[in-house]
Amino acid sequence: MLRTHTCGELNMTHEGLEVTLSGWLQRSRDMGGLTFIDLRDRYGITQLVFNLEVNTALCMEARKLGREFVISVNGKVAERSNKNPKMATGDVEILVSSITVLNVSKTPPFTIEDNTDGGEELRMKYRYLDLRRNANKKNLELRHKMAIETRNYLSSLQFIEIETPYLIKSTPEGARDFVVPSRMNPGQFYALPQSPQTFKQLLMVAGYDRYFQIVHCFRDEDLRADRQPEFTQIDCEMAFVTQEDILVTFEGLAKHLFKSVLDMEMGDFPRMSYNQAMTLYGSDKPDIRFGMTFTEVTDLVKGKNFKVFDDAELVVGITASGCSEYSRKQLDELTDFVKRPQVGASGLVYIKYGLDGVAKSSVDKFYTAEELTAILAKFNAKPGDLILILAGKKEKTQTALGTLRLEMGKRMKMTVPGDFKPLWVVDFPLLEWDDETRRYYAKHHPFTSPVLEDIPLLDSDPGVVRANAYDLVINGVEIGGGSIRIHNKELQKKMFTILGFSDDEAADQFGFLMNAFEYGAPPHGGVAFGFDRWCTIFGGGESIRDFMAFPKNNSGRDVMIDSPSPIKAEQLKELQINLMK
Amino acid sequence: MLRTHTCGELNMTHEGLEVTLSGWLQRSRDMGGLTFIDLRDRYGITQLVFNLEVNTALCMEARKLGREFVISVNGKVAERSNKNPKMATGDVEILVSSITVLNVSKTPPFTIEDNTDGGEELRMKYRYLDLRRNANKKNLELRHKMAIETRNYLSSLQFIEIETPYLIKSTPEGARDFVVPSRMNPGQFYALPQSPQTFKQLLMVAGYDRYFQIVHCFRDEDLRADRQPEFTQIDCEMAFVTQEDILVTFEGLAKHLFKSVLDMEMGDFPRMSYNQAMTLYGSDKPDIRFGMTFTEVTDLVKGKNFKVFDDAELVVGITASGCSEYSRKQLDELTDFVKRPQVGASGLVYIKYGLDGVAKSSVDKFYTAEELTAILAKFNAKPGDLILILAGKKEKTQTALGTLRLEMGKRMKMTVPGDFKPLWVVDFPLLEWDDETRRYYAKHHPFTSPVLEDIPLLDSDPGVVRANAYDLVINGVEIGGGSIRIHNKELQKKMFTILGFSDDEAADQFGFLMNAFEYGAPPHGGVAFGFDRWCTIFGGGESIRDFMAFPKNNSGRDVMIDSPSPIKAEQLKELQINLMK
Repeated sequence: MLRTHTCGELNMTHEGLEVTLSGWLQRSRDMGGLTFIDLRDRYGITQLVFNLEVNTALCMEARKLGREFVISVNGKVAERSNKNPKMATGDVEILVSSITVLNVSKTPPFTIEDNTDGGEELRMKYRYLDLRRNANKKNLELRHKMAIETRNYLSSLQFIEIETPYLIKSTPEGARDFVVPSRMNPGQFYALPQSPQTFKQLLMVAGYDRYFQIVHCFRDEDLRADRQPEFTQIDCEMAFVTQEDILVTFEGLAKHLFKSVLDMEMGDFPRMSYNQAMTLYGSDKPDIRFGMTFTEVTDLVKGKNFKVFDDAELVVGITASGCSEYSRKQLDELTDFVKRPQVGASGLVYIKYGLDGVAKSSVDKFYTAEELTAILAKFNAKPGDLILILAGKKEKTQTALGTLRLEMGKRMKMTVPGDFKPLWVVDFPLLEWDDETRRYYAKHHPFTSPVLEDIPLLDSDPGVVRANAYDLVINGVEIGGGSIRIHNKELQKKMFTILGFSDDEAADQFGFLMNAFEYGAPPHGGVAFGFDRWCTIFGGGESIRDFMAFPKNNSGRDVMIDSPSPIKAEQLKELQINLMK
Repeated sequence: MLRTHTCGELNMTHEGLEVTLSGWLQRSRDMGGLTFIDLRDRYGITQLVFNLEVNTALCMEARKLGREFVISVNGKVAERSNKNPKMATGDVEILVSSITVLNVSKTPPFTIEDNTDGGEELRMKYRYLDLRRNANKKNLELRHKMAIETRNYLSSLQFIEIETPYLIKSTPEGARDFVVPSRMNPGQFYALPQSPQTFKQLLMVAGYDRYFQIVHCFRDEDLRADRQPEFTQIDCEMAFVTQEDILVTFEGLAKHLFKSVLDMEMGDFPRMSYNQAMTLYGSDKPDIRFGMTFTEVTDLVKGKNFKVFDDAELVVGITASGCSEYSRKQLDELTDFVKRPQVGASGLVYIKYGLDGVAKSSVDKFYTAEELTAILAKFNAKPGDLILILAGKKEKTQTALGTLRLEMGKRMKMTVPGDFKPLWVVDFPLLEWDDETRRYYAKHHPFTSPVLEDIPLLDSDPGVVRANAYDLVINGVEIGGGSIRIHNKELQKKMFTILGFSDDEAADQFGFLMNAFEYGAPPHGGVAFGFDRWCTIFGGGESIRDFMAFPKNNSGRDVMIDSPSPIKAEQLKELQINLMK
């Protein structure tokens, strides 16, 4: 090894020891007759000292070294006169006796500091320099820890990690596939998996009973913020289980990760039905770190000639405690916020319950003081509160108010970093009606089992059928989701029919799975967690990109290696494909 | 859970307990008034008993259940009258009180037994049934154990697992890439990685210092036996190390796997130079479980008018102890063996050293008895030995004799299952000359560093330059290999030039790596192990397919899911590609 110790481990117990350290020159300072160099490696920073009087040549050599040079030094560990209690190695410094330059460095295009001066595009192009920054290093170390703890925990419960193939088959249902032309089978294509869903179900048919895999998945989607064409899943499946068994097992995993990675003891996770979540939070992934739940006032406000409320399917609001003194400007901002196309409300009604006990609202002319008081009573409002009300079609209004609630939570600083509130959302609807294409889509995926007692409703009223499906939500972010699967060929066929598959299409795409169901498929179910997102939440980050070593940009490009890129004409010919002009 | 216990855990300590078991019906037997069912799950088999007299209806129900039905039973654990010491659960049986059929099964197309009646193609089509067989289950369990032990061992040494991307850039050097058309960047393609080589080197530049990853890799090659288009590597890299550090570190990993997976304590692994390996074993991956090393007799045999030897660059042979009584037919077989195009020798010369002390050879007319005796002496032959000699061009003859040596090892049963002889092969040549294309190729890959003192020879005599490269060989199988890498831009550029890259090609394909070398790249090196192969060796298997859950066949097809397959015209249009007619 080109070192005896790392740059993160020396302290007073090593005083007097001759050591060799290797690393990067973080910064250097000349202070009169002394030169100090901060030497950095993965484990920390150690201060090197050179004395111009004691060893002139060496000190002059040290003064010539530039930022990010890779050097190896020999020297003796000494106590610092000026200790730095913020650094693990802050009690000591190295009195250097010799330097070897292992490699030089051009001046990096941005500073390798926590607060760098490099913009995102530049940092992505030089990702290998960006990754030297402490924040990124911590993120990747957290990710490693999450992965190894996940694997050991699940292994201890007799889960077995089984690798499923990446070259599989394209199935047009769901998101767009990335495809891979086959040279050996011209005109035919593999697809990269959007998830190992069918393979893990086949492993249950094969009797493996407790499977998991930390696995890459691929989706060729137009990238929104925080989507990546390839991402990582903790993919799990169990046989001979009920929904309850799965929730208990993976709540165990989540608690283990909280404990082992964040050193947090978590109590049991609350559960909430999809309907409750929509009714109280306007979201199927509620952030329950704060309350501000919904109060419905539809019946109370109708029939007073306020057309917006009279025409509405739902009138619903939230109480922003202590915000009664919001200014005209602040209220206008909120109105603009809810009218943005992403939120989609037509307007915002407010009632200020002044600290003086007087209520003032944007709809004063329609409601008497007594009527306003009744509404405030329904909200359990206290003087000082601000009531914000939206009205319109039920689901749209719920969702819009849910977004406003999160915005108010942010403005009112209702959350603190490091607070985690996990939650299971259960009893999802099985199907979702799409007005545009006039057909049902699977809310989760086509393999999700309906709740047993709802099966008869599949024919009469498919929209109300509940699924044996569940999501794990932490702080308003969906960390994972899953379901009990269908394990019966006839039910699976019926499901494909409801989803608009012809028998031929179903057989062509999923025939192998339905055939497998005829050879002794056990009851089974599972869950998949978005690993990048989970790491991001635990690491207190904003973007999953910061928790991936080599992410792609919003056009799906890796700007560091400059990919995708054209390939040679010979390659196209071998693959028997042409580019369209 | 639809069970209280698994089918592998009940014994006499559970006698009298009411239990619920779930699993597959392995077989059933009616013996007079009793029906026995072997119920199977991942963990074992438990015997169920039904008594026709005691519960006629239940017993009749049990008799209707077919092979591979999935059932759940309640019953009481009882001592068997007829114990089966070969089974973990062989002391007990379950007196069943009720049955639930969880799923029916058609009769499987082959038997789910260790010795199945299903051919390979059929078993691959129904891989989910094939995987129910014990042998496959053991293989996948071994694979899981290997992976988790690898991860925990390397993590304990502060290695960090970092995921590198699967959608990268095509580089024509090396094997053929699988490519992925980019919809968002029409006319451009990603490539699937043949290995994360450049990414792991960039991680060293980024300061991560000890990286590993268990990762899928892809090669679009015409598949020979035991090649798969996707396979798994244990990919590792370290910075601030010498070759010695890497050998010591990964010998540690290998010893840990021997101990934790096979419960074998291994001594230190021997090392052998490439030249020694070729000279003594005719192979760069010698099987050292047995000796039979080469003896060169070139000087001894020339000048006796035997043209084959006179014209040969090398005359070399092995001693097959105790084979002097081989028949004419056996010797003809060996001659045919070495003349096969895969071996490529022009003929075989033998000397039988009879038990009576008399030597007889196929070249008696060219050599006197004294001359034969001198040759035998050179071989250290004893009466009863058979000497087998090949002659011709040096390397070709070494390789051919190496193949013959392995064949003799097999015929003479020189190896025993469960014996493992690991070996490091070191000092590989850096380059390989190809007569056909009249250029050098990288023996390992273009990033491998030459041995420092050989660098001056790069200009004068590239063919003799040694690489800082090494392979780990177990029982004649190359389990992994690696090298110290080039970390200097100029040397890397020179290497590309020697390998026939133009400056533009080098910059276009590997510019990002050479740029990275300008920003403080540390000395680094690494190794990659063929994970499928390592599992196969440890599991005592023949084919890596048996250690993959869902392998592809020799045409690169997954016959279970029927992939690759045509994709829809819309998909092609979105990707802006056409199929050639």
